[in-house]
Amino acid sequence: MLEEAGQRNPSYQTLPRFYAVTANAPLAERFTVNGDRLWHDIHYTAQWSLPSPGGITRLCASPEDKMARDWFREQVLALGADYKVNATGTQFALFPGEDNSIPPIAMGSHLDSVATGGKFDGPLGVLGGLEVIRSMQEQGVKTRAPIVLINWTNEEGAKFWPFLGSSIVYAGQSTVEKAQASTTHDGSGIRMGDELRKIGYVGDGPNTFAEFPISAHFEIHVEQADSLEKAGKPVGWVTGWQGMTWYSVDLKGEDGHANTYPMYGRRDALVGAAKIIVDLEKLAYERNGYTTMTNIRSGPWGACNIQSSVRMAFCLMHKEPEGLETMGSDIEAKVKGIAAMHGLDMEMKRDVHLLPGEFWPEAIDCVKRACGEKGMGAITGTGHDSTMTTTLVPTGMVFVRAKGGWSHTAKEWSDKDDCMEGALALGKAVLNFDEVLKTKKV
Amino acid sequence: MLEEAGQRNPSYQTLPRFYAVTANAPLAERFTVNGDRLWHDIHYTAQWSLPSPGGITRLCASPEDKMARDWFREQVLALGADYKVNATGTQFALFPGEDNSIPPIAMGSHLDSVATGGKFDGPLGVLGGLEVIRSMQEQGVKTRAPIVLINWTNEEGAKFWPFLGSSIVYAGQSTVEKAQASTTHDGSGIRMGDELRKIGYVGDGPNTFAEFPISAHFEIHVEQADSLEKAGKPVGWVTGWQGMTWYSVDLKGEDGHANTYPMYGRRDALVGAAKIIVDLEKLAYERNGYTTMTNIRSGPWGACNIQSSVRMAFCLMHKEPEGLETMGSDIEAKVKGIAAMHGLDMEMKRDVHLLPGEFWPEAIDCVKRACGEKGMGAITGTGHDSTMTTTLVPTGMVFVRAKGGWSHTAKEWSDKDDCMEGALALGKAVLNFDEVLKTKKV
Repeated sequence: MLEEAGQRNPSYQTLPRFYAVTANAPLAERFTVNGDRLWHDIHYTAQWSLPSPGGITRLCASPEDKMARDWFREQVLALGADYKVNATGTQFALFPGEDNSIPPIAMGSHLDSVATGGKFDGPLGVLGGLEVIRSMQEQGVKTRAPIVLINWTNEEGAKFWPFLGSSIVYAGQSTVEKAQASTTHDGSGIRMGDELRKIGYVGDGPNTFAEFPISAHFEIHVEQADSLEKAGKPVGWVTGWQGMTWYSVDLKGEDGHANTYPMYGRRDALVGAAKIIVDLEKLAYERNGYTTMTNIRSGPWGACNIQSSVRMAFCLMHKEPEGLETMGSDIEAKVKGIAAMHGLDMEMKRDVHLLPGEFWPEAIDCVKRACGEKGMGAITGTGHDSTMTTTLVPTGMVFVRAKGGWSHTAKEWSDKDDCMEGALALGKAVLNFDEVLKTKKV
Repeated sequence: MLEEAGQRNPSYQTLPRFYAVTANAPLAERFTVNGDRLWHDIHYTAQWSLPSPGGITRLCASPEDKMARDWFREQVLALGADYKVNATGTQFALFPGEDNSIPPIAMGSHLDSVATGGKFDGPLGVLGGLEVIRSMQEQGVKTRAPIVLINWTNEEGAKFWPFLGSSIVYAGQSTVEKAQASTTHDGSGIRMGDELRKIGYVGDGPNTFAEFPISAHFEIHVEQADSLEKAGKPVGWVTGWQGMTWYSVDLKGEDGHANTYPMYGRRDALVGAAKIIVDLEKLAYERNGYTTMTNIRSGPWGACNIQSSVRMAFCLMHKEPEGLETMGSDIEAKVKGIAAMHGLDMEMKRDVHLLPGEFWPEAIDCVKRACGEKGMGAITGTGHDSTMTTTLVPTGMVFVRAKGGWSHTAKEWSDKDDCMEGALALGKAVLNFDEVLKTKKV
């Protein structure tokens, strides 16, 4: 799945190039947002979390996720949204434009988080979009296209694997059935669809782009790196993404007594796994990429067993497609070799393979103009719901400066003013794109 | 805890040496057991297990453990036992002798198992003892000393750590409170005392040697190595045990995003753990011992986190005290060095340190005479309830030939005739010791 996800939808009609002006659209020029309100929402909604001092732990389809979703529904209904939930739990809040025959411009991100995550990765995108809607209504800003605000389900994949769990279905690269059947790495067999049903978030809203086309997708996100901080810029336009490949590996050895079985002849899956982890770290240095082992589960559980079974998951990241492919073939060879040397049966799956790529120039341009002097170009080191929508329609992302580049930690932080600048850039980008759409030949 | 557990109780009065005859006691000479009945019991009681084809998974204080315990209680009550359960769940079945002022001779082992274990490690010792009692009653064999059959709780430590969870209290090296508070390595916080209470196995029986002294302890066990098989012997007398040290290690790094955080500056606890596992394996080869990493738990759980926290447990085994101590200091230095190199906070605890040692000559001799030509001497590679009782009183073990030396696996196997020979040797050893006691000056 997600193979070659970096390729764009070839059937989409490229927009004319003459939109590429350097000023913002007139509506965008006058647009403002309420930074206090956004800041309040970020910290208010952070209450829906497992105990996670300074950050949040709001795993997909958890009771905490339900609370955040319920709050989101109330907010958008109060703003008059046409509200739907789809079969993978994604929430859509549609607001009409002047011409409702045009597919809506989407703003989307996710309210779910990783375990021991921060308050910004995900929520900032949804809450920033909410702030844009509120400010547009207050300022009487009417777009030609409708606007849809989306809370995508299971972006993180922290609970159910793989990640981008609903936008992948929307992009036609997986199915509702597969997404609902996605399970957690802990071996419990808990399925996303069942857990979403328990919290009342399996609905009859649209699941795919074919059912519910959009014109574009914009997303605010914390940078998760320190290039904006180093350059002293509060915001950035995201030009593209680093490539990444995710693997899961199962190693099967043989049971035996931890104290009495001689070293010779052991088929210890955990020793094999450890050698893979050590080689995986080395690989990052050898190929100038990043690598991370993100999960390990070893058994049989207990005090006195040679470990006969290990399941693990890891990712490779590289800015160049060739670098990514080379890292992939390197680690595949190493895993096979280590398994063979330790007499282990091995199954290795490439779950995700996202080549590095670039967002649509027309969307990047809308974000760039929205950021203006306050911004700079940057690339993202990871996948987002936007890296799914970009396979379909013009997609752009606004980066917000992140303290120390930290993310997926309680230390994740963006200042209030930077969050405000991010939401402002998002709103302006949407308005810029709305203006661009006017020039499109229908 | 368990520090220097290899030392014998210095206060115990050593028996006179003139018992050391080469023939069995008269009662032992005529004694027989019913191999069919023992074989039936081994396979009948194996039903109380989680699904575990060919073997058993009967973790301490589980519903399956309760079933096996209930059956054991019924059997010994039917045989007229004075039956007690103590505060750590250990079952005692006392049968009177001709002189009940003498502390009973104990036969004991455990009905609990590791996960995906075999049908013999543990059960053979308890069921073999039961067969001895039945046969004695049928044959009208009356001992001078009373006899107690013991099902020790949590010998394996597979569910609650540390192992020898009840015999350690009996030996005065831990307390009821500590044993009841022992938890599982999985971080769930489940406590042994609470789980025993749930299955109705916290009783008011004796907890310590001081409360309930015994004269000696004998145990049948599968060899868990292949020396008997190689020599073509069905049984063996166990002269002593290999030393072992158990450590638990906690590594704390720092949370971060698995895709976006640069390699430089990471504090990845799982990479540190992997390097420890690789060094631990190397250590066995360098020092001619055995080493096993038996548990690893890594977090935060999820798809996209640098692993900031790892807990693991491992054991070192060596036949020589110096070898064991050297391995310990080697690995302690390596763990400290790896933690420092990866910026990890580290806590390392030596949970168990059992120096290699020998059982009591008078008890070994009783087993040796019981085995006769069918047996040979051997040492055990691991700890047993007998390595606890040997700190108190004469203790001996009977080994039964194990196919391929396998243990803690569904492949664990001893033939019916070998199990019968083991039970016969156990019974004869008890009768030999009873005869020895007659020579003891009171």
